[in-house]
Amino acid sequence: MLKLDEVVDRFRIDPGEKFRLKDHDPSWAGNKGVPKAKRKKFAEDLLAKSIRELAEAQDRLYASDTWSVLVVLQAMDAAGKDGTIKHVMSGVNPQGCQVFSFKQPSAEELDHNFLWRYSKALPERGRIGIFNRSYYEEVLVVRVHPELAQAERIPGAEIDRKFWEGRYEDINNLERHLARNGTLVLKFFLNVSRDEQRRRFLKRLNDPSRHWKFSASDISERGHWDAYMEAYQDAIAATSTKWAPWHVIPADHKWVARAAVAHTIAEAVQGLDPKYPEVTPEKLAAIKDARERLEVEGD
Amino acid sequence: MLKLDEVVDRFRIDPGEKFRLKDHDPSWAGNKGVPKAKRKKFAEDLLAKSIRELAEAQDRLYASDTWSVLVVLQAMDAAGKDGTIKHVMSGVNPQGCQVFSFKQPSAEELDHNFLWRYSKALPERGRIGIFNRSYYEEVLVVRVHPELAQAERIPGAEIDRKFWEGRYEDINNLERHLARNGTLVLKFFLNVSRDEQRRRFLKRLNDPSRHWKFSASDISERGHWDAYMEAYQDAIAATSTKWAPWHVIPADHKWVARAAVAHTIAEAVQGLDPKYPEVTPEKLAAIKDARERLEVEGD
Repeated sequence: MLKLDEVVDRFRIDPGEKFRLKDHDPSWAGNKGVPKAKRKKFAEDLLAKSIRELAEAQDRLYASDTWSVLVVLQAMDAAGKDGTIKHVMSGVNPQGCQVFSFKQPSAEELDHNFLWRYSKALPERGRIGIFNRSYYEEVLVVRVHPELAQAERIPGAEIDRKFWEGRYEDINNLERHLARNGTLVLKFFLNVSRDEQRRRFLKRLNDPSRHWKFSASDISERGHWDAYMEAYQDAIAATSTKWAPWHVIPADHKWVARAAVAHTIAEAVQGLDPKYPEVTPEKLAAIKDARERLEVEGD
Repeated sequence: MLKLDEVVDRFRIDPGEKFRLKDHDPSWAGNKGVPKAKRKKFAEDLLAKSIRELAEAQDRLYASDTWSVLVVLQAMDAAGKDGTIKHVMSGVNPQGCQVFSFKQPSAEELDHNFLWRYSKALPERGRIGIFNRSYYEEVLVVRVHPELAQAERIPGAEIDRKFWEGRYEDINNLERHLARNGTLVLKFFLNVSRDEQRRRFLKRLNDPSRHWKFSASDISERGHWDAYMEAYQDAIAATSTKWAPWHVIPADHKWVARAAVAHTIAEAVQGLDPKYPEVTPEKLAAIKDARERLEVEGD
């Protein structure tokens, strides 16, 4: 049986490590020597425990009003981003949590630098912000479809290797800045296999109640699978830093992915050890005074 | 026993009704002829049922991407706003819900019209936005402390009866605009009694783990109780409209307040009857095509 702390270590991409996506099995689901039912039970318990721990730590995070947490979720379609958000964040006080998804950029957004619209949505101190897709799309979908980069009308830009390296550097520098200013950045790639995506798409297509969700682009993007995997591999290799590590989460089994993401976030937020604000002697005196005044009022 | 639909009707302030706060008992907790344990059980069941219904309706709201919902929560300190948000919204997918609280206005915010900073935080289509305090503070705390209105430096403004009537009108017009454009506006005043606030303050002051939350201004604002009640009464009377009704919720008992708020929101969102988007014949054809392509792939 996998130990708890190994869950996090196993999926974290350390900077300097030679990262190859093919070394990461999307269908990983623990030690196969252990019966599946037992592994699944372990994952479900871990999810439940992590949700409780996260809710408790988030309460202190909110009270301390010092750290903020940015969770970046990236994945191919049908990898389970929405379900992960729903399940992992279900126990957290909605007052301390914000979820943002980013649609097609507007004309105004295209008229700014590529990090602008994401920067505006960053979580404030005391909050956990979830980016359901993020500025990483600017080196993923935009790399697979370079005409999207052209649409940004950057003067003199050639969309070559150097262009993407510049973007990785810009992203690393933004995240460095965030980390320096008290934002914990946690990045997850939900690593689903091409075959499992096919199964999930077919399941959706065979379920009329989910037909409204269908978009022809889901299928056409699947046609660019290899280009996406290359873009993911390059982006993760270039931007997994000490201050903002990537976690490559096996996502063919939802119960594995949810438990791993929940445990990683809960551990990290607990690791900040946010404290309830200290009560100064002046405040204690004011409290004593207030108590006396209120008690007298009741007479 | 109170019937379910009466819960909502009872607390809603209808426009045209002569509204007097003193007609609304903060300690109301159902028909006293029924044993308290039974009433409490009824409220807890209603809360649980409403949370489930709200989660289901919110899923459709998000999918339909047409309506948005703005929930305004106003109350004196210790009336239970934070706890209500936590309990009522706990079942809702965080992806479809946003909570905003508003602190002291910044210099930039004071340099704009008084609705500006709140307008920026309004919920987008498909989402439920909760304002934990709101633009109503501009006719509540600002009315009790008119020097705050002076700080807005409105040219030629005299802070008199007409000034507040102008603000009520501005608020009604904003809410009219929101309603016209697909935002359901639900407003709640958690009506706690002065005596219950005293009890809750004392409980906090006697609990060292909650000392960090103490602010001397909590006690000093209590000194203006009657002025606040007058400001609330005038504001509610002037801004309870057909398109954005106020609900005055008895809040001396948390189990009453939470159930009433949850039920009111759940009923209202269900009442919108948001629909999953329709699947057009073109889309059905594309789905059929996609299914065939994916099935072939598997061979």
